[in-house]
Order: sequence, then structure tokens, then C-alpha cells
Amino acid sequence: MSPLLQEKLESFRARHIAWFEHELNRTAAAPQLQEAMAYSALLGGKRIRPFLVYATGEMLDVPLAALDAPAAALECIHAYSLAHDDLPAMDNDALRRGQPTCHVKFGEATAILAGDALQALAFELIGREHPQLAPEQQIAMIRKLAEASGASGMCGGQALDIAATGKATLQSELETIHHLKTGALIRAALAIGALAAPNVSPAILAALDEYGQAIGLAFQVKDDILDQTSDPETLGKATAADIALNKTTYATLLGIDGAEQLLKQLTEKALHALQQIPYNTELLQDFTEYLVTRDH
Amino acid sequence: MSPLLQEKLESFRARHIAWFEHELNRTAAAPQLQEAMAYSALLGGKRIRPFLVYATGEMLDVPLAALDAPAAALECIHAYSLAHDDLPAMDNDALRRGQPTCHVKFGEATAILAGDALQALAFELIGREHPQLAPEQQIAMIRKLAEASGASGMCGGQALDIAATGKATLQSELETIHHLKTGALIRAALAIGALAAPNVSPAILAALDEYGQAIGLAFQVKDDILDQTSDPETLGKATAADIALNKTTYATLLGIDGAEQLLKQLTEKALHALQQIPYNTELLQDFTEYLVTRDH
Repeated sequence: MSPLLQEKLESFRARHIAWFEHELNRTAAAPQLQEAMAYSALLGGKRIRPFLVYATGEMLDVPLAALDAPAAALECIHAYSLAHDDLPAMDNDALRRGQPTCHVKFGEATAILAGDALQALAFELIGREHPQLAPEQQIAMIRKLAEASGASGMCGGQALDIAATGKATLQSELETIHHLKTGALIRAALAIGALAAPNVSPAILAALDEYGQAIGLAFQVKDDILDQTSDPETLGKATAADIALNKTTYATLLGIDGAEQLLKQLTEKALHALQQIPYNTELLQDFTEYLVTRDH
Repeated sequence: MSPLLQEKLESFRARHIAWFEHELNRTAAAPQLQEAMAYSALLGGKRIRPFLVYATGEMLDVPLAALDAPAAALECIHAYSLAHDDLPAMDNDALRRGQPTCHVKFGEATAILAGDALQALAFELIGREHPQLAPEQQIAMIRKLAEASGASGMCGGQALDIAATGKATLQSELETIHHLKTGALIRAALAIGALAAPNVSPAILAALDEYGQAIGLAFQVKDDILDQTSDPETLGKATAADIALNKTTYATLLGIDGAEQLLKQLTEKALHALQQIPYNTELLQDFTEYLVTRDH
């Protein structure tokens, strides 16, 4: 990992966690609900989506203070999706990031409600009055986030994933699932960071979207490779989990070599997209490199 | 029910259902998810929240076309909350409006996802570009809806309700639960209908909020009375259900006579709030009357 990326990953992460923790401690109606929300939202994790919001916004000269709420909103959606995906009726996971999952710790009812309330909080955070964000920008962000997380985005991808489990899956089907399930929110993070810049050009938004499509898929391909080649200690979760669930992955579909080759193509596509952006894209270049070479 | 109210309930309902059905048929990523969303969102129900959006907006001279998306957004939130509340881990209800609940028909995983996607759709609908709504109005609506449905609103109330089940509950605690669990969304419906009017005055918003507080609670008190005094055929659901769950209700707390008296006080408070609005409030007056005299 480049020193620049390491510094920025750490500083954005620290900033995000401090801001988000303060925010999560403000909303207190039901103590147990609040505790479950904070638990789900603050527990470990790479914080890739907030990072992408900050990195993209900063690249376009947006003050970081205008990016705190949008960054946290992305993490709200991600955290709620994990709390719900882990439920017994979904993936039935007892561990997440090495810790008991939300329903194991707080019970299923509270885990469902915590997820629901985190989703609402995402939209509340972006919608809140902010001196550096115009309503036009906020509403454009809301639109991106809602589309990326709903039936035509993340939830749709999750539903397709459930339907595909245990069945033979074509590469094109797998691509659709991951474009929706993980790609949509990553693209939204980039778009939302960029929308915090007043009058960001359609050309930049399009290049960022192309970049997001490539790294979203690359992220998944890398995950699939790690699931098959890493060990539980390094990865922090069970390996070969997808194989145990009889899920088609890029590694099972293309073999490790084929998956590595796809990863290389996606990396080139991502870096090519960044070249179309007339700003300093060094941080996003370094992030791309990290994403496809990481060991967990 | 007055002829005016009957006509408006029917015409707003028909308009809302037609608009909403069309909308729900547009979002197609995963067929089963879409089917579950439409099932949850379109099945029966009084459509009180869309009615309140249309009624309030129309009172303030807002064109109905500007109210379709906000009205449907309120119903998205209500429908998602029912789909999640009915889950085995929550209230474990197999019947809703006389039909199998979402998880009984589509499975738990799909019911969870359908609820999640309906919540996202709510914000997507309000956020969509609309010739008659300025971004300032849309963002104010988003703010209201997110606050009313999240941890400080509906989800918080549901969490408190779960925590209170099986315990002795004070009237003040019961009031907090219902203010959050049902009241918040009813107040949001009124506010959102009013926010569709450009430059609606703070005085009108305050009067509508006072009205919403009163009818939100009145609605619950009446439900509690009906749960104890009605029969399953008239009500369309099991009666004495709350007693079976050992839940404190206004009827168990105050007795039927005491609950009826509280209902009368709330009605007066509601009608008094309407008197402060310098527009034709006849429809909302009639609605108040209906709310507290209905038999199901």
C-alpha cells in the first residue's frame, strides 16, 4: 500500500468514525435499538464506501466538512445490509468481522429494526441542512443513494443472489448480481462524493461511474479469490464459505487463474477511466492497486 | 361517513393505487422481489397516509400531480413496516388484511428484502425530479419522512413496543410508544402534503402537527377499543390480539369507558387545531369524525 493511500485511509477512517459515532449517540429513543445500530455501524470494517466519498470529494476540492454526512450515509446503508444479510432467514451468519453478528447479540427483532433505522438515518443525514450543500446537490445524492440501494440496486442484487444459490450460474448472471449487490453502492459512493462539488461535469460523473463499475466488480472477484486461497486467520472470516453454500463465484466459474486474469482486465479498465478525469487521481489509482492486491 | 369524505377517500385511493401500481411495475431487477413489494404495498388497507397527503395538499391548493409521489412514499414506509412487523421474529402474524402476510407467501428472506427495498423506494419517489416540486421542498419532505420513520420515530416506537410487551406499562409510556410507532408517520403525512405547497407558513405546519398528534393517538385509542369490542368478521383480523400478547392497551389501561373519554378529548383537540388553519378544513374535520366512529 502506498504511503499516500495508507495516510488517507487512516485519516478518512478516523474522521468518519468520530463523526459517525457522535451522530449515532445523538439519536436516542429506544436504548437497545440505538445500541444495536451503533454496534452494527461502528464495528470494524474497511470503510471503503466512506473512503470513496471523501477521496472523490477531496479530489474535486470539496471541503471535508461537506462530506461527513454523505460518507456516513453510505456506511449506514452498507451496515444495514450486513445486519439484514446476516439474519437466520438470509445468510445465517453468527460472526461478522470476528464479532457476534447483530442478531446474535441483540436478538432478531432488534437486528431487523436496527437495519431499518440505519437505512432511514442514511437519508436523514444527507437531507439535513448543511451550509456547504445546496438542496439541488442533496436531492441528487438522495436519488443516487435510493436507486443504488433499492430494488434496482443492492436489494435487487441480494434477491437475485438468493435465487441463484444452489443453481448453476452463468458469468453474465453472476456479473448482474454483483453489479447490483455490491457495485451499485460503490458507484453511488463515487457519485455522491462528486455531487458534493457544485456543478461537477457530466463527463466526470460518467468517468467515475465507469471506474466504479470496474472496481466494484474487481472487489468481488478479489473476494472470491481470497475466499478460496486465503486462510480464516488472515481473512477474519470463514474461507471456502461460498463453496460450502454451493454458490457460484468467479473463482469456481473461471478457476483461480481465470479470475486473476479478469481482475487484471478490470484493473486496466479502472485506471483507464481515471485517466479521463482532469484532476489529481493518484489516490484513486493507489486505491485500485490496493483493492486487487490485498490479502484480506 | 360524510358524502364529501366518502367521495374523497375513494377518489384519492383510486388515484393513489393506480399511480403506485404503475410505479411498482416499473422497478424490475428481481421478479420475485418485485412481486413481494407489490403484494405488500398494494394489498387492501385504508390508505390513510396517502389520503392525508392528498387531503392536506389539496386544501392548500397543491395540484394533485405534485402529491402522487409523496403519497406513495408514505405508503411505502407503512407497507415496509407491516412486512417487517409481521415477521416471525417480530409479531409473527400469518394474516394481514385477511390475506397471507408477505413472509408466508414469499418466504422470510424475500419479505425482509421487499421491506428494505420499499423503504428505499419511498426516498427515491420523493427525490425524483418533478416539475411542480422545488429541490428545497423535496429535501424538506425527505427530512420529515426520514425522521418520522427512523430511530426517533416509527422504528424507535416499534423497539419500545417490543421492550414493553409482557410488562406493566404506564399511560405516559404507552403514549410515547404510539406517538412514535404510528403518530410520527401520520404527522409526516400531513407535513409532507403541506410542504408540497410552496412557502407554506410555519403556523400552518404547526397547526397540522398539533392535529396530527391528536389524530395519531386517537387512531390508536380507537384501534385498542375495537380490538376489545369488535368481532373478527367486522374487523378483518383477530380481536383481543393485544390481550393475548399480554400487551398494555388504552382499553386495558383505562377501561373501555376511560378510553372512550380520552378519544373524545383527542377529537376536540384535533378539531381545535384545524380551526387555526385559514383554509377549508371540512375534509379533515370529516376525517377526524370518521376516525373515531369507525367500526373497523
